[in-house]
Amino acid sequence: MKNPESVVAETLLRIREKSPLVLALTNSVVQPITANLLLAAGAAPVMLDDAEECVELINTCGSALLVNLGTLSRSQAETMRAAVRAANARGVPWVLDPVAVGLLSFRTGFAQELLSQKPSVIRGNAAEILALAGYDAKPRGPESTCGSDSAVVAGKELAIRTGAVVLVTGEIDYVTDGVGVAAFANGHEMMTRVTGVGCSMGALTAACVSVADCPFCGAAASAGIMGVAGEIAFEKSEAPGTFAVKLLDAFYEMTPEILRSRLKSV
Amino acid sequence: MKNPESVVAETLLRIREKSPLVLALTNSVVQPITANLLLAAGAAPVMLDDAEECVELINTCGSALLVNLGTLSRSQAETMRAAVRAANARGVPWVLDPVAVGLLSFRTGFAQELLSQKPSVIRGNAAEILALAGYDAKPRGPESTCGSDSAVVAGKELAIRTGAVVLVTGEIDYVTDGVGVAAFANGHEMMTRVTGVGCSMGALTAACVSVADCPFCGAAASAGIMGVAGEIAFEKSEAPGTFAVKLLDAFYEMTPEILRSRLKSV
Amino acid sequence: MKNPESVVAETLLRIREKSPLVLALTNSVVQPITANLLLAAGAAPVMLDDAEECVELINTCGSALLVNLGTLSRSQAETMRAAVRAANARGVPWVLDPVAVGLLSFRTGFAQELLSQKPSVIRGNAAEILALAGYDAKPRGPESTCGSDSAVVAGKELAIRTGAVVLVTGEIDYVTDGVGVAAFANGHEMMTRVTGVGCSMGALTAACVSVADCPFCGAAASAGIMGVAGEIAFEKSEAPGTFAVKLLDAFYEMTPEILRSRLKSV
Repeated sequence: MKNPESVVAETLLRIREKSPLVLALTNSVVQPITANLLLAAGAAPVMLDDAEECVELINTCGSALLVNLGTLSRSQAETMRAAVRAANARGVPWVLDPVAVGLLSFRTGFAQELLSQKPSVIRGNAAEILALAGYDAKPRGPESTCGSDSAVVAGKELAIRTGAVVLVTGEIDYVTDGVGVAAFANGHEMMTRVTGVGCSMGALTAACVSVADCPFCGAAASAGIMGVAGEIAFEKSEAPGTFAVKLLDAFYEMTPEILRSRLKSV
Repeated sequence: MKNPESVVAETLLRIREKSPLVLALTNSVVQPITANLLLAAGAAPVMLDDAEECVELINTCGSALLVNLGTLSRSQAETMRAAVRAANARGVPWVLDPVAVGLLSFRTGFAQELLSQKPSVIRGNAAEILALAGYDAKPRGPESTCGSDSAVVAGKELAIRTGAVVLVTGEIDYVTDGVGVAAFANGHEMMTRVTGVGCSMGALTAACVSVADCPFCGAAASAGIMGVAGEIAFEKSEAPGTFAVKLLDAFYEMTPEILRSRLKSV
Repeated sequence: MKNPESVVAETLLRIREKSPLVLALTNSVVQPITANLLLAAGAAPVMLDDAEECVELINTCGSALLVNLGTLSRSQAETMRAAVRAANARGVPWVLDPVAVGLLSFRTGFAQELLSQKPSVIRGNAAEILALAGYDAKPRGPESTCGSDSAVVAGKELAIRTGAVVLVTGEIDYVTDGVGVAAFANGHEMMTRVTGVGCSMGALTAACVSVADCPFCGAAASAGIMGVAGEIAFEKSEAPGTFAVKLLDAFYEMTPEILRSRLKSV
């Protein structure tokens, strides 16, 4: 990725232009912020419960799929299996967000099963990526993190094993396909004090990948856009209620120029 | 409806006075905004999962019922069937919001089934009303729209066929019982950039119908109140995060005088 | 409780320091505000659907459990039973929030069953506490209230019968273990115009109880912190959309000094 600023800016423009339809199979806590963040960015969110309807949507008009394991149930796992099969059959990119994997057995087993189903991107915090890659990480909950740099090696291994691009989010966001690594130092710690910001980033990644030249570019773009929006929101408010509102505003008001001037590619 | 301004203003006052209890069987994405919008308007929202509890609520204290198909599941369809039967048995008005009908088979079949169950009002965007009426519309997702004027004829046909009042929402909101048509040119495009504004309008319609002299009056009132609130919110903020917050504020601060001065009946 | 101000202030500091992990099994409407309020206060929210995962979480790292019956389903009742058993087996405190008990039969029976399972705290409005204690209260919906003072005697009886501390919320919040009573006159009526403020208070109570010296202290602390935060939020905004945002900000910006200066122990 020669010029990260251009990739990120170009991806934003494409989302605005194409308004990709993202089927977000996500946890019940973050559905509102996920849908609102996709809308603010210019994408078109769809959330469904029924497996047949998910397959039908992917087969007719779906641009991308998000699979987020936050409040996984047995029946939702079946829906996700069906949606992933449909996405793969039609070449629709899909993103795995393995929330709290390594902490709870059911989702850990299901996430391992999904790793063989060719996700385009895997997005997680350091503890989740370490756990998926087989390291003995002990995540404490969906909001807890160790430093994202601690999971770069694990991310590379996971990328090589699965063929997915791995996006490790944290103070610095790392994107790797197992060979190259892109990193962005944008964002703010306040993003971890609002529920669903990380999960929404998984949905944004799905939108970006559906319009970008490659999954690596899409994952990098989502990290860049989210990080810059988070910084702008924190400049508007240092408390989490108002911050969450301003974050949506920042997505809506984002421009390629803002991205180019603020992006900290490291 | 001789004087639309009076009908809309009077309906707001009645909601404030009677605080109708609205059982909102709605999709999981929009539950928070739906409940908050009803509370801000002066109504009392209730959301339940269990079919027996829904029937019991309708039989004891329910003023109105909303049936929104956004994240329809097989078990939710059973709950909705039971709730609709109970509502009809007791003369409790109910509103059908057939989200994304025409796009997905399961909900399309279920919506057609519900059409025979005498909804008081059917609220949808143009694509949804066209699809329900049997036209070959191709909606792309819950947020997408074609011009609402394109569905007025279909709305009239649907009203005549079902006995329901049809509310077609869009740049102009149309209300029809198959004979007369009322139309309001209020609202703002930003309302489509916040998830759940349309779905909340379905719940507001249920509240309005429960206190109005007739379903036509109630549907017109909900269109008028929502449109004026949307305009006020947009004057306070042109970005969707803040806009959504100001929309709730506008409902709470709405008065008959504001409605009378701003309503654009066309 | 000799010095209520010190207990409330100290509990806030402990939440910030220990960041207790609260498993909130709560209704689908209030999940976002509940998670955000816990995060803003300094606690770590977790929401799960699967019973085995709930048990596993409690067995490994759960600090407290909330059981809120707002959108109770048959399968969720099973999950709650399993979670409560696990919590009791490990000495993890749990809070029962019996939303709309007395109004609907299924949840009323389930709440009575749970009363024998040794909840640490029962939080409800006056109508709910009266119904649980066997009085013939007729609550109209989750947001409706009669005066909280009308339920103090019932709360004492319920506390003696169950061994739980009872927190009756309303214009005045009462905490009782059946013998002593603490009362706080903070808060504002606007808190009833935002969906999930009461339910979030149940989750906050769970967080407080997990770090306090006793359930009575924890329940008192949650009433005090919530009431003061509500007053601050209302000073920032008198309309419910903005009020809800400012409420989260107030939790984040709360200090022991603010609590000591504003707490109205009566």
